[in-house]
Amino acid sequence: MNYPNGKRAVKSSPMNHSFSNRGMTLEEDINSTNQYYLDMDLAVIHKKPTPVQIVKVNYPKRSAAVITEAYFKQASTTDYNGIYRNQYVDFEAKETKNKTSFPLANIHDHQIKHMESVVKHGGICFMIIRFSFYSETYFLEAKELLPYWYEKEADGRKSIPYIDIKLKGHEIPFKYQTRVDYLTIIDQLYF
Amino acid sequence: MNYPNGKRAVKSSPMNHSFSNRGMTLEEDINSTNQYYLDMDLAVIHKKPTPVQIVKVNYPKRSAAVITEAYFKQASTTDYNGIYRNQYVDFEAKETKNKTSFPLANIHDHQIKHMESVVKHGGICFMIIRFSFYSETYFLEAKELLPYWYEKEADGRKSIPYIDIKLKGHEIPFKYQTRVDYLTIIDQLYF
Repeated sequence: MNYPNGKRAVKSSPMNHSFSNRGMTLEEDINSTNQYYLDMDLAVIHKKPTPVQIVKVNYPKRSAAVITEAYFKQASTTDYNGIYRNQYVDFEAKETKNKTSFPLANIHDHQIKHMESVVKHGGICFMIIRFSFYSETYFLEAKELLPYWYEKEADGRKSIPYIDIKLKGHEIPFKYQTRVDYLTIIDQLYF
Repeated sequence: MNYPNGKRAVKSSPMNHSFSNRGMTLEEDINSTNQYYLDMDLAVIHKKPTPVQIVKVNYPKRSAAVITEAYFKQASTTDYNGIYRNQYVDFEAKETKNKTSFPLANIHDHQIKHMESVVKHGGICFMIIRFSFYSETYFLEAKELLPYWYEKEADGRKSIPYIDIKLKGHEIPFKYQTRVDYLTIIDQLYF
């Protein structure tokens, strides 16, 4: 099985089984948006590399080191962070095929703890959620997301209803150059 | 060759050949310092995962996916970032055995461009440099570092003299719980 950039491998790992390969599209859209922000000198926001546990490395003579055994690790933070208008920005992005709710199974405890810390320290922290069936992408602030997590932890509902995200979130405009133009939402909410 | 956490593999890659395995010590010292900051709720600063280009992945039945071919990639940003006292913090860390200067060969063009952007957007950006021979660790602000890079690019000196780092940098105190207590320097310089 050959994956030229390893991305599909990540998305189809057991941890992400409830999300389709379309999840790639959201990641690619965000990466190209971030690149545009960087090129236009609007913000400096990057995706963190996929965390990998390296076990074996070979050093062939006269060529690059080859990792021959490694495993995917669970991320201890969110995937994206950086700086915008002097502010620390931090977010996670997920796509779902589900039509009625966003399942919380794909967020990890570590990521929630990280989001809580970022909020406490004054960062702009949120989640980008795409409902692929509707081709809609929402910006949901961490402070709106966290209560749903606490409810799940208390053996309550294990997902956020689509209608709640529509009401409490903010739909992110799709533009040609900025396919997930989340800075416009940050501008509305924080500046 | 078996490396339980892959770290030595990274540090002895060709890109880092001028830095000894002692380089690990600085990374470990910073990681434990960051963990302490996190536990004490002082700051949320993490090392980014090592960037890896994944080529082949196997999915054995009933066990975790195994990456069987991957390569180290050059980082496009610095290694560490996060938030402290509402401020975006971003830095790189390097150790040298050299006694008289810090060689600039180990910093990449991408990392310099990233540092320039962070400074422009109002982040706290710096480099942590350890001279292992003296067991001294310095905090050098990006604005002090960048002129040496420009000089190198203009075919000038390819290193920063030790004495310049002593004069323009700030020695970072070593403490039992915070082995590279760089927040004390940030407090002095920015608050």
